[in-house]
Amino acid sequence: MSRESDTSSMSAAEADPAAMMALIEELFPICRSITGGGVRRTLSILQRHIPLEVHEVPSGTTILDWTVPREWNIRGAHIIDQDGARIVDFAASNLHVVQYSRPIDAVMPLSELRPHLHSLPDEPDWIPYRTSYYNENWGFCLTHHQLSSLADGLYRVVIDSDLAPGHLSYGELLIPGESEDTVLFSCHICHPSLANDNLSGIGVATMLARHIQTLRRRYSYRFLFIPGTIGSLTWLARNEDKVQSITHGLVLSCLGDAGGVTYKQSRRGDTAIDRIVANVLHHEKVPHRIRSFVPYGYDERQYCSPGFDLPVGCLMRTPNGEYPEYHSSADNLSLLRSESLAHSLAVLRRIVAVIEGDAVYRSCNQKGEPQLGRRGLYAAMGGQRSADYDQMALLWVLNLADGRHSLLDMVERAGVPFATLRAAADALLAVDLLEPAPVRADTGVV
Amino acid sequence: MSRESDTSSMSAAEADPAAMMALIEELFPICRSITGGGVRRTLSILQRHIPLEVHEVPSGTTILDWTVPREWNIRGAHIIDQDGARIVDFAASNLHVVQYSRPIDAVMPLSELRPHLHSLPDEPDWIPYRTSYYNENWGFCLTHHQLSSLADGLYRVVIDSDLAPGHLSYGELLIPGESEDTVLFSCHICHPSLANDNLSGIGVATMLARHIQTLRRRYSYRFLFIPGTIGSLTWLARNEDKVQSITHGLVLSCLGDAGGVTYKQSRRGDTAIDRIVANVLHHEKVPHRIRSFVPYGYDERQYCSPGFDLPVGCLMRTPNGEYPEYHSSADNLSLLRSESLAHSLAVLRRIVAVIEGDAVYRSCNQKGEPQLGRRGLYAAMGGQRSADYDQMALLWVLNLADGRHSLLDMVERAGVPFATLRAAADALLAVDLLEPAPVRADTGVV
Amino acid sequence: MSRESDTSSMSAAEADPAAMMALIEELFPICRSITGGGVRRTLSILQRHIPLEVHEVPSGTTILDWTVPREWNIRGAHIIDQDGARIVDFAASNLHVVQYSRPIDAVMPLSELRPHLHSLPDEPDWIPYRTSYYNENWGFCLTHHQLSSLADGLYRVVIDSDLAPGHLSYGELLIPGESEDTVLFSCHICHPSLANDNLSGIGVATMLARHIQTLRRRYSYRFLFIPGTIGSLTWLARNEDKVQSITHGLVLSCLGDAGGVTYKQSRRGDTAIDRIVANVLHHEKVPHRIRSFVPYGYDERQYCSPGFDLPVGCLMRTPNGEYPEYHSSADNLSLLRSESLAHSLAVLRRIVAVIEGDAVYRSCNQKGEPQLGRRGLYAAMGGQRSADYDQMALLWVLNLADGRHSLLDMVERAGVPFATLRAAADALLAVDLLEPAPVRADTGVV
Repeated sequence: MSRESDTSSMSAAEADPAAMMALIEELFPICRSITGGGVRRTLSILQRHIPLEVHEVPSGTTILDWTVPREWNIRGAHIIDQDGARIVDFAASNLHVVQYSRPIDAVMPLSELRPHLHSLPDEPDWIPYRTSYYNENWGFCLTHHQLSSLADGLYRVVIDSDLAPGHLSYGELLIPGESEDTVLFSCHICHPSLANDNLSGIGVATMLARHIQTLRRRYSYRFLFIPGTIGSLTWLARNEDKVQSITHGLVLSCLGDAGGVTYKQSRRGDTAIDRIVANVLHHEKVPHRIRSFVPYGYDERQYCSPGFDLPVGCLMRTPNGEYPEYHSSADNLSLLRSESLAHSLAVLRRIVAVIEGDAVYRSCNQKGEPQLGRRGLYAAMGGQRSADYDQMALLWVLNLADGRHSLLDMVERAGVPFATLRAAADALLAVDLLEPAPVRADTGVV
Repeated sequence: MSRESDTSSMSAAEADPAAMMALIEELFPICRSITGGGVRRTLSILQRHIPLEVHEVPSGTTILDWTVPREWNIRGAHIIDQDGARIVDFAASNLHVVQYSRPIDAVMPLSELRPHLHSLPDEPDWIPYRTSYYNENWGFCLTHHQLSSLADGLYRVVIDSDLAPGHLSYGELLIPGESEDTVLFSCHICHPSLANDNLSGIGVATMLARHIQTLRRRYSYRFLFIPGTIGSLTWLARNEDKVQSITHGLVLSCLGDAGGVTYKQSRRGDTAIDRIVANVLHHEKVPHRIRSFVPYGYDERQYCSPGFDLPVGCLMRTPNGEYPEYHSSADNLSLLRSESLAHSLAVLRRIVAVIEGDAVYRSCNQKGEPQLGRRGLYAAMGGQRSADYDQMALLWVLNLADGRHSLLDMVERAGVPFATLRAAADALLAVDLLEPAPVRADTGVV
Repeated sequence: MSRESDTSSMSAAEADPAAMMALIEELFPICRSITGGGVRRTLSILQRHIPLEVHEVPSGTTILDWTVPREWNIRGAHIIDQDGARIVDFAASNLHVVQYSRPIDAVMPLSELRPHLHSLPDEPDWIPYRTSYYNENWGFCLTHHQLSSLADGLYRVVIDSDLAPGHLSYGELLIPGESEDTVLFSCHICHPSLANDNLSGIGVATMLARHIQTLRRRYSYRFLFIPGTIGSLTWLARNEDKVQSITHGLVLSCLGDAGGVTYKQSRRGDTAIDRIVANVLHHEKVPHRIRSFVPYGYDERQYCSPGFDLPVGCLMRTPNGEYPEYHSSADNLSLLRSESLAHSLAVLRRIVAVIEGDAVYRSCNQKGEPQLGRRGLYAAMGGQRSADYDQMALLWVLNLADGRHSLLDMVERAGVPFATLRAAADALLAVDLLEPAPVRADTGVV
């Protein structure tokens, strides 16, 4: 049994940060929302990198407890003061308009306009990001400095948008493997010019898909590029027959900031993906935190709803809502660190290597240790202080290869990186001291 | 499904400490023991507050491994020295006589009297409390100062008591609810003028019973006012058919001192009452300790004997034996704090609210989150930093309402007070997003 | 039910350290290896203390994945420099020769000799201990000072050894008890003049066997004095029918140094022996550490291989490889502490006392506490601050004697030494308040 484990070192080079950053920079200016041309343009750019299938679901389609909303498109928007000055302009930042704002062209006094203006008093230089998807409304976002400087008087307010029957668009890529057991990677594509929240996940997911295409694969891999909430609900509702083949999954977001890695566990908390991510992060150098599931955050909320309860966690660096720039114009390209993006991708490649490399084996010599020496696997001279490290790895695998422990179980018990025991298992397989156990490798259950 | 949860704040006012203290003051002077007129008088006073049924069990009745003892009554007792001075007098403190002392009227030298005199050398101003229920004897308790000042010479010793066939008396109140599943509250009524150990439990239990009478009740509630050990054994032996309907229970004692709250777990340690008390105390402001069961203490020893093994813990403030005044004349009214009594009652009301409010639900939308917005349960404007607190409560209930988690399970996982998720569940029930699961609410088992 | 518990204090006297030390001193000069005359001489000396059966297994016998090697015997060995000086001599220390060196008598330049010389550069005064059992070779060990002082030139190298068909020898002692359930004690006898690693285990095991011979025994006891690895494999292969009757076991080594006690758990980690050793050490005064199983160390590697997975741990003071003198000439008699040997033996006697004394009981009064007073087991005067300690022990046993808790379960829960509850159980048995439960005592399973 040969195996192409991804045990290369996590250099920035391997992760190709320049290509990732170039992709993110190209996507940054586009005004994405949960529907509309911005999403289509985004998916179309991604198709230059990976063979994404784009799905279009008509407005009005019933999706579980929800309905696909009207499609929203916007061409421009601005506020002009009574001196004729264009004081707020969508052309300057697509965050200036509350997403899903209905069209308007009206003149009104400040007192009437004021409830439609949103700012961040604590961060007076930043424009907030606001949406009103399911509650028809209109509004502008602006810096608190701008808001504070508005004089009484009349303002002309223009939003040149459409809210009309159309489609919800999402992208999907299935990379088939030997088994129909599937690893899901999901990221949201519904935020306009926000870099860490949205684009970092898109960029890393795209490059991860490219990497996985190059691997020999036991598992199949499914990548979803979807609008948040309604997109994951749509995929789940349309693919109920595929849901139960998801054996591992990760929602990807906020993967480019300077912070350490945060892993939010699946609802069940002890699934294979939870254990694998914990193991990979434990042997990483970068600081990390592991958090229990909470029913708030990204699309893991839907994947982990009780009726699906999938083994899907969420991999981030600084989580949503916990960095000051979150959901504001300050979550821009300057927030991203090339080395963070590269490291996030490298961690994901390690995770994939563990998913692919995990298996349950049986030692061919259950009773007593086999004689490693006559297979060239033992130090020739005895009595030295201790077995060297690889020696220990061989002994761990032999001792725990009882057909009930997976390699993941073994590394958790031995406290070593997965690759160490994977290499030992390969060495033992090569001399017929080990054989695959007749069980499903991903569960370890006979 | 409507529900009258007791989620009011724990003000001292709600707990009516003045009434509780007045009752305790009225009961304080009575010379209670495990049988006799003092117990009957105590129960009769309690009957003015709650409709207690008084049971009389004849002396000599076999109770499991025990026998109901003779009834003890005492009219007076004193020691007169050879100068005719009444140096110890039961009229001054009923602690002066060892409980269950047989009658005596004799003159004897100090050397003969001495073995029958008990004092506390370390607390020379306090009179100890001593008993000799099952070992016929007589004796006096006095301060160590008194004892030390006794000169050699003859003393006249008089104990005007009866030890005669009679009855063991105890009080019982059943407050029926929708179900025969019963919550037990038990307190001992066998101590003479001891305030924290004995009367605080009686006072709090009486007021708790009055409160429960005003609630709409899913559970039935049984209050026992019994002599320690022999009383609980008697109730258990006479009510074996009712024992298994006890789903939760608490022994109440030492609830009036200035200390924090102590909860002693049931023998099983992980029953519903153990988890409920832990949850309520965790969200309280007052310091508290949770202790494992030990087979020493109050009547939980009997309720938790292996043949019954009931889910009965013990709620106290400073536990028996851990405050210096315990079992001495210093455990008097001055040891009690009105606010401690009120707080103890308030904690118990919270515990009852959780017992009543706990249930297992199923979300009507297991697959994905339901659309809260169109039911008026979601913030109209998206993109803000985080869901507010009630929003999270809704999401927790929806995510965990899979028919396997009780609300108590949910609050333990969410780390919030019970009332928060109870209110969320009520809001979801009101818009038909939640339904009761077809399981026993108290066990959570289908 | 009478019982001769070993509850005496752990005085050095009880452990007879002088006899142990005398035995170790007698054994020290012998050149043991995994086969050969040194092993036979060692076993023959042990037979003067305990009725050891000596087994001889022919070279070439297949043992699981191994083959019994040729027998190695050595009469002498030395290196002579060109000045005729005998610079290294087996007569000075049997560590000077790499174990299993083939015979040689040759003259060679230093450059050719050098690869066959082993020293410890970091400890230039010590001779290392080296072996080459299964890889035919020859070599000398010497101090690094010696090695460094060797001048270029010719050296005469003589090893007067045999590597010839013969036998593997090991000693076995079965001390039968009421049951065939067997407690295994195993120590290695394959090291030459090494004191802590090898002889301390042999000495303590011998004295422990003598002690066990004097006990009334529920369990049978099997002592193995075997060469490491090949010896335990040989016993396991030849006694597969006896393996499953091993209910507890300990490998004994490194029991004489000045360090605290180290217990290495069995592979399963939660077996009776693991819990018993932890309990005994917890109530000891000497510092101790409990470590999880790792598949490296002594013969527990074989006993805990997946096909046997026996409940066998390893008791040591400072573990193999963790004291500087390990596997060198500095692991000599001066490293041993008489009081450490005595304490190790005392700990083992305690462990045996728990193994023998553990049992599952049922209280004859499951419902409520029995009345201890009328059996003379309760303080006559009530109301005193707390039950004294023995009282608590009675209450613990009565409360947990439900036929599901072993005494070991009880002491773990009560947090007291085993002997305390053993004594309480004896007191309760004596007054018919307790009876043996109809279960296997060692498992606690009905």
